[in-house]
Amino acid sequence: MNPNAANALARVRVVLDHPSHPGNIGSAARAMKTMGLTRLVLVAPRRMPDEEAHALATGAIDVLQGARVCASLREALEGTVLALAFSARRRQLSHAQLGVREAALEAARAAAGAEVALVFGNEQAGLSNSDVLLCNRLVHIPSDLNYSSLNLAAAVQVAAYEMRMALGERKLHAGAGERATLQDLEKLYEHLEESLRVTGFLDPGKPKRLMERLRRLFARAALEREEVAILRGMLNAYDQARSPRGKLD
Amino acid sequence: MNPNAANALARVRVVLDHPSHPGNIGSAARAMKTMGLTRLVLVAPRRMPDEEAHALATGAIDVLQGARVCASLREALEGTVLALAFSARRRQLSHAQLGVREAALEAARAAAGAEVALVFGNEQAGLSNSDVLLCNRLVHIPSDLNYSSLNLAAAVQVAAYEMRMALGERKLHAGAGERATLQDLEKLYEHLEESLRVTGFLDPGKPKRLMERLRRLFARAALEREEVAILRGMLNAYDQARSPRGKLD
Repeated sequence: MNPNAANALARVRVVLDHPSHPGNIGSAARAMKTMGLTRLVLVAPRRMPDEEAHALATGAIDVLQGARVCASLREALEGTVLALAFSARRRQLSHAQLGVREAALEAARAAAGAEVALVFGNEQAGLSNSDVLLCNRLVHIPSDLNYSSLNLAAAVQVAAYEMRMALGERKLHAGAGERATLQDLEKLYEHLEESLRVTGFLDPGKPKRLMERLRRLFARAALEREEVAILRGMLNAYDQARSPRGKLD
Repeated sequence: MNPNAANALARVRVVLDHPSHPGNIGSAARAMKTMGLTRLVLVAPRRMPDEEAHALATGAIDVLQGARVCASLREALEGTVLALAFSARRRQLSHAQLGVREAALEAARAAAGAEVALVFGNEQAGLSNSDVLLCNRLVHIPSDLNYSSLNLAAAVQVAAYEMRMALGERKLHAGAGERATLQDLEKLYEHLEESLRVTGFLDPGKPKRLMERLRRLFARAALEREEVAILRGMLNAYDQARSPRGKLD
């Protein structure tokens, strides 16, 4: 593995959202370390630290002990430009679903110059729709139609393996422009929502549906930082053209 | 997944050689089933059946209960034409080591028309050199140089995932000729060893080294059934040309 790939792996965090079983946290830490991933983030774990987690981490105690604990997924994703939401479920309205191999290739490109997150939900409930929409890709691990229930640590193992393979297999280049962080995007979405509400285009009776569609659209577009600035500049221009109490009065 | 791929998955067995921890057997069963593999073979498991194995198998109890228990690896491999020996260790003299992705592609081709085994060693000791030589490929899962210790079930998960990906990704064709079974090959090796001993070419002081080299060579060649018949015909011819007590007298 070349130094670039090692640096890219260091920019990849694994986020476990509300994990129930400490044993899975330990096994996930081990799975990560075998593939060279070391940054574990836990969102509101039920128990931590825990003896069983330590026992199952075996040689990856350092990863476990270095884990960051966050109160929310939003906090866990701070600074990232790409967050892959792993889910076995099909969802009615969400980002297009990618296979883990394809998603890992995109994540490898992004990690050449920026922060990336692999996000896994709770063992029973998985990720909620709003969790998925905080991320910008929905990813599935190909599996049997009749039994697609990978253990949490097993899913982390496959994802980490594909990350390593993706970094080993291709030359890294970060693309033309600097990608927007998820925080930039959240600010854009907030701005957009507020702006659309004021115009009346956003129906307060069904506010979520529209914003979901827009999130999906912009997520697919893989926005660059400059493009977000341009979009927000546009929104500002619209907002200012309307106020003080422009056409609404 | 098309019917051909499903049929091919049904020709793939997962062999766990001397597994120590029943929990790993259960987790391996679950990992297999998520990828559509259902045939589990256990060589001399320390404990089986076992409560912990059942607990960790969750929805894959059927795979666990259908597991075949064998006394030896040789018995577990009966009827196979291709056996992939998974190992993290580097070995001085053995088959060339393939990555799991490449090996899975070969296994997928073979499984289009014949029996295939994925073979995993004991959690602590791994596979012995003689175990590896009973197989015809040595396979590693790419991993971090400083920590390559995948949990047994995690290794099964990655291997099963790659088998599924390999079957999903390409059209299946079994190749030109029918591949030799491992039993055919063992008979060839026995014949060869006996024949070489009689000629004196095989040094009884270092018998293993030569046979290892020959096994490696023939394994790499991916012999067809007819080719084995031809080789054995040649050996017979040599044997008969020498006796009764030909040049040795």
